[in-house]
Amino acid sequence: MFPWKSCCRSLTAPVAATLLWMTLSPAAESQRVPAATLPFAPVLPQSVAPALMPLPASVERGTGTMRLDQNFKIVLEGYREARLDRAAARLQERIERATGIILLPQATGAQSTLTVRTTRASKPVQALDEDESYTLEVTSAGATLTAPNPLGVLRGMQTFLQLIHQDTQGFVLDAITVRDKPRFAWRGLMLDSSRHFQPMPQVLQQLDAMEMVKLNVFHWHLSDDQGFRVESHRYPKLQAQGSDGRFYTQEDIRKVVAYARDRGIRVIPEFDMPGHARSWFVGYPELAALPGPYNIVHHETVDDFEHPDPKQDGAMDPTKEQVYRFLDGFLGEMTALFPDQYFHIGGDECDGKQWDATPHVQDFMKAHGIKDDPALQAYFTGRLQKLVTRHHKIAIGWDEVLQPDTPKDVVIQSWRGQRSLFQAASRGNRSILSAGYYIDLNQPASQHYLVDPLVLPPFNPNDPTGKGVEVPTHLTPEQEASILGGEATEWTEYITPEILSNRVWPRTAAIAERLWSPQSNRDVADMYTRLGWVAHELRMQGIENGGLLQGMTERLAGTTGIDHLMVLAAMVQPPVDYTREVAGQAYDQLRPLTHLADSIPAESDTARHFAELAHAVATGTATAAQHVEARAWLTLWADNDAALAPMLDRTALTIELQEPSRNLARTAIIGLQALDRIEGHGKGNSENTAKQQQELETFDKLTPAALRNMAVAPVKELVAAKP
Amino acid sequence: MFPWKSCCRSLTAPVAATLLWMTLSPAAESQRVPAATLPFAPVLPQSVAPALMPLPASVERGTGTMRLDQNFKIVLEGYREARLDRAAARLQERIERATGIILLPQATGAQSTLTVRTTRASKPVQALDEDESYTLEVTSAGATLTAPNPLGVLRGMQTFLQLIHQDTQGFVLDAITVRDKPRFAWRGLMLDSSRHFQPMPQVLQQLDAMEMVKLNVFHWHLSDDQGFRVESHRYPKLQAQGSDGRFYTQEDIRKVVAYARDRGIRVIPEFDMPGHARSWFVGYPELAALPGPYNIVHHETVDDFEHPDPKQDGAMDPTKEQVYRFLDGFLGEMTALFPDQYFHIGGDECDGKQWDATPHVQDFMKAHGIKDDPALQAYFTGRLQKLVTRHHKIAIGWDEVLQPDTPKDVVIQSWRGQRSLFQAASRGNRSILSAGYYIDLNQPASQHYLVDPLVLPPFNPNDPTGKGVEVPTHLTPEQEASILGGEATEWTEYITPEILSNRVWPRTAAIAERLWSPQSNRDVADMYTRLGWVAHELRMQGIENGGLLQGMTERLAGTTGIDHLMVLAAMVQPPVDYTREVAGQAYDQLRPLTHLADSIPAESDTARHFAELAHAVATGTATAAQHVEARAWLTLWADNDAALAPMLDRTALTIELQEPSRNLARTAIIGLQALDRIEGHGKGNSENTAKQQQELETFDKLTPAALRNMAVAPVKELVAAKP
Repeated sequence: MFPWKSCCRSLTAPVAATLLWMTLSPAAESQRVPAATLPFAPVLPQSVAPALMPLPASVERGTGTMRLDQNFKIVLEGYREARLDRAAARLQERIERATGIILLPQATGAQSTLTVRTTRASKPVQALDEDESYTLEVTSAGATLTAPNPLGVLRGMQTFLQLIHQDTQGFVLDAITVRDKPRFAWRGLMLDSSRHFQPMPQVLQQLDAMEMVKLNVFHWHLSDDQGFRVESHRYPKLQAQGSDGRFYTQEDIRKVVAYARDRGIRVIPEFDMPGHARSWFVGYPELAALPGPYNIVHHETVDDFEHPDPKQDGAMDPTKEQVYRFLDGFLGEMTALFPDQYFHIGGDECDGKQWDATPHVQDFMKAHGIKDDPALQAYFTGRLQKLVTRHHKIAIGWDEVLQPDTPKDVVIQSWRGQRSLFQAASRGNRSILSAGYYIDLNQPASQHYLVDPLVLPPFNPNDPTGKGVEVPTHLTPEQEASILGGEATEWTEYITPEILSNRVWPRTAAIAERLWSPQSNRDVADMYTRLGWVAHELRMQGIENGGLLQGMTERLAGTTGIDHLMVLAAMVQPPVDYTREVAGQAYDQLRPLTHLADSIPAESDTARHFAELAHAVATGTATAAQHVEARAWLTLWADNDAALAPMLDRTALTIELQEPSRNLARTAIIGLQALDRIEGHGKGNSENTAKQQQELETFDKLTPAALRNMAVAPVKELVAAKP
Repeated sequence: MFPWKSCCRSLTAPVAATLLWMTLSPAAESQRVPAATLPFAPVLPQSVAPALMPLPASVERGTGTMRLDQNFKIVLEGYREARLDRAAARLQERIERATGIILLPQATGAQSTLTVRTTRASKPVQALDEDESYTLEVTSAGATLTAPNPLGVLRGMQTFLQLIHQDTQGFVLDAITVRDKPRFAWRGLMLDSSRHFQPMPQVLQQLDAMEMVKLNVFHWHLSDDQGFRVESHRYPKLQAQGSDGRFYTQEDIRKVVAYARDRGIRVIPEFDMPGHARSWFVGYPELAALPGPYNIVHHETVDDFEHPDPKQDGAMDPTKEQVYRFLDGFLGEMTALFPDQYFHIGGDECDGKQWDATPHVQDFMKAHGIKDDPALQAYFTGRLQKLVTRHHKIAIGWDEVLQPDTPKDVVIQSWRGQRSLFQAASRGNRSILSAGYYIDLNQPASQHYLVDPLVLPPFNPNDPTGKGVEVPTHLTPEQEASILGGEATEWTEYITPEILSNRVWPRTAAIAERLWSPQSNRDVADMYTRLGWVAHELRMQGIENGGLLQGMTERLAGTTGIDHLMVLAAMVQPPVDYTREVAGQAYDQLRPLTHLADSIPAESDTARHFAELAHAVATGTATAAQHVEARAWLTLWADNDAALAPMLDRTALTIELQEPSRNLARTAIIGLQALDRIEGHGKGNSENTAKQQQELETFDKLTPAALRNMAVAPVKELVAAKP
């Protein structure tokens, strides 16, 4: 019997553990030990004080507090526009959601007022160079937000929201002066709506969350091999035949653009060309180098050895004038739909297989002295870029488009490696960083957080960018200024709508801080503390994030008695990088993503906590309490499989969990032996240690359930530790 | 350190409990006890098989299964309309959400098809007497849903959805033939949008949930003392001055009506008159008996001894012709906006205080021979009912409107007691039942489930209905037919938008079953099992319900280290009936509902489970394992306060939890002593027992935190048990 329906599902787990304990000491009255004898004090709840993220450029604490109650009101002064009214209404609504306070529209005798002063309009289409600065002053008499234009107001309002916290009297803001502006002008989130279509509510939700952490570019990956996602009136077969019926209408697009503008966010569409374009060819096979017919592919196409057909990852035909005429017409329609000055043309991973297999393309290359596929792509990009310019837009492309003769106004988006940023800078091209910000790869927030657009990481031979080219190690101030910022990227091979926000957030907030806040903020522990509170703030605004998705887990294993499954779920993580196919789960748009691997967050807090604990134990810096706690965790896992295994034979999705459950138990048992040795009441020898390390290696492999055993690394550290 | 962000928040709790245990036995290796020695087998997850709710009229199991995969499709045959296409699309979307399967629009080689056959249209405006029957046949070759009209199709589609479950190969439906039709034609949910305004998303969500459990009437309480919630073009001061800016536009209303029609749900507006009408008077004081000015009141008005001013619960003036002219114009506008044939005029709780204080009203009564306030209200109702008829609608009113000369076409909604149904029947009026279905009173689902519209409960002297009138104890078949069904009612004194769905669901599903399914279904345990799965199904469709609201709890106490708070949260319940004001939390629309009492569900599964356990122990029918489990729970609670108390001094909302936490611990300690006595290793005497019972009485009181200690009743049973 599972005693509690919703969140705190594992309230039977303490009972199970208590029972474990009680079976040891059958005497009745003496069994009860007051909790005061617990070997360490209960952890106090995290500060209910504000957790700013991104951290502002400058903060000065004052004295006193401003109380927030039902009479709080926002007063707009100076320049006015409807967007500001909506922003004020939205802030009020967010305050109501965050605090539960019901604000009165006719607040009288208001003791707490946020006065907003702004001077002038921002540009009709939000531009890259706009001022986003603001000053927010909170005193016990009220708060004042001053900004040169509405963009700064939008940013400052989110800071105001994050400053609200509780004391024993209710909700308050501490007196403070925040003077703030972003470090980088381009702070984005890229969403891939092609590999898995993401419906409108999910799209709008990303914009809501982006506003909260001051991101300002929504880069929308709208076409790829697996789906063309925008309605074209001019070429209706694009969506009619290339989308499985899952696409955005032009009305949807206009709604997203307006919704984003309200939140100070630019919308940059990407139509990936000339590769990653197979979905175009279903309706318009004449665009491809090889003749049709084409179908939508639902699997991965690049480097797809199972489907070596060059048509699988078909490329546009760079030799045909009709292709450029088509694209001219297409760009005419799409550049009118998306008002932003920038337009993304993709350009990544065109492997040239189809061109190599097409005689007339080969003839063309010979006739025009084009020596290889990259040069042919450069020719295509040059033609395409001219069309983009003709439609009054600036082209952006993935780092492959950076070639010696790439026009200087093309913006380079680095995805394969950070060197391309510096290379672009040295060539006079502007650029943005995404290498290191691939949130689809399930890396921890700390890893993304420490990637800095202006700091070249140590040389990595696997970074294909800047190969054979001299890359400067230091940039001039002008060159530094050409690095505009960065974008977190969410590719959606393994992301269905029900998973999206849970994986994008809260980790993207750490990237948002990197791009907004002063470079000197690099304290990972502090970042995680604040990130935990930001995750809560996002949740209060309806953005479920970074936790176990309860519904999915219930779907997997039922609604009752799943506490032992939760114990396992807390200590596994989904595959990092592109390793999920190693588990036999290669991307297939039609594969249900209903595994435990899909319902867990990218990063387990339990795992991070235990790793810290084990490190303290292994390095001899642990307190007695930490030793006891480490043992308790290991014991929990060591015993969990015996209880969990009998439940796992019901459905296909639980059968695959048998192996990870066994592995976790076995890992924990090794950990307990290591702990015994470290604590001096077990014996160890080097042969034994080697054997254990070997066994742990096998548990470190991805299981067919696509789960990483997060106990392995810390237990390895325990095994390797000197007693 | 709290190791897990989202759902399974209490993963530190097992560690805490394990640590408790470990402190007892310091020897290292021997501490680990394999889980196999647990005194009872791990509970298997609840069946992943279908849980139908409401239960159909007739079910016949077949053999074989129908597989559900990406090629599943719905084929519509026979009569077609756009609503059916949308219903099919909605079913597909719900299947995708429930299963994670991605359905292909161009499903080819479909192995699983749902063929839908229907013959004719339903009425242009859904009527009371329409056929909602359907037959659903599932075989291994596919499924067929047959219904006379689209309403039956809508009902049958929800049954199809509930039949989907998992086996070791994936999702399937077992072969079955369902022949189904409702027991009652009127199956409703009433939502009070006045006391706390409920925004559009919340309203639409109720309609989504209602469809899933085959409810067909959305009764919308749109005006009351505390807010007038509909835009009137004719009398715009109604919403402009009577709503604090929180109202539905006419466009919103039309959207709700259309959304409901799509789901086979009628929308019946209620404008409560002549009492509960103070919000009208803010803009139009001339409607009231006493002169203005009037303001919106945000507190409770009826029986409000703090505000004895008769204007507080002002009533319309039944003596003025201009009032009826106003209402005639108002009804003209509103009856055009709401197409349903029925129109609710309220009529409850008009206490006549204002009439008694108004000389011209007293003069009018004398002049017309009206003997008392109820007679004056009957006069008003009679006039109003004629206006309703003039606008081609049938009036409904709360049970107070039933008077000797009430016209026979007025439908009586019983709220004060069930006798009014039988009284109405004997007078030839039709009626619907809400007494017993007040889900705002936080009673358990089992209690609502057993209330039957056709079964008169034992005589209750507190039931004011039918007083002084002979109420038949048995009804003729014709009289039975006059009882049309019932409505769950959600009054929103203590319900803000963030709480709404969590309190309405899943309990309302139990009422939906009572109103749809054959009368003979009365197995409470079986109902709870199915209700647990329905709660999951609702959650998968975005309707968070019946659990602890995580965000609210984090708001209360932070995001980390709140496991001990969760232990408390699982064993308390919000006040039942109208007792919250006893805790000093009388209704005030502006009082933030941010207490722990607001974030917990109406009914704790933990509490229900422990009550069963304690009952088994107290009656000597418990197994050894149940004895051990009961002790484990009591031990957990007994120890919890020492760990929790130090965390509770941070905010106003946690300070108030100190007393409930202490009380739970003390209750559990008494429970442990009783258990010792029952198990024969403690001594008890009658004096001791009496003292304990006395102490338990004090813990049974509502604390200022408005929490009920759910351990008290089962511990009382343990204390009273014979050893």
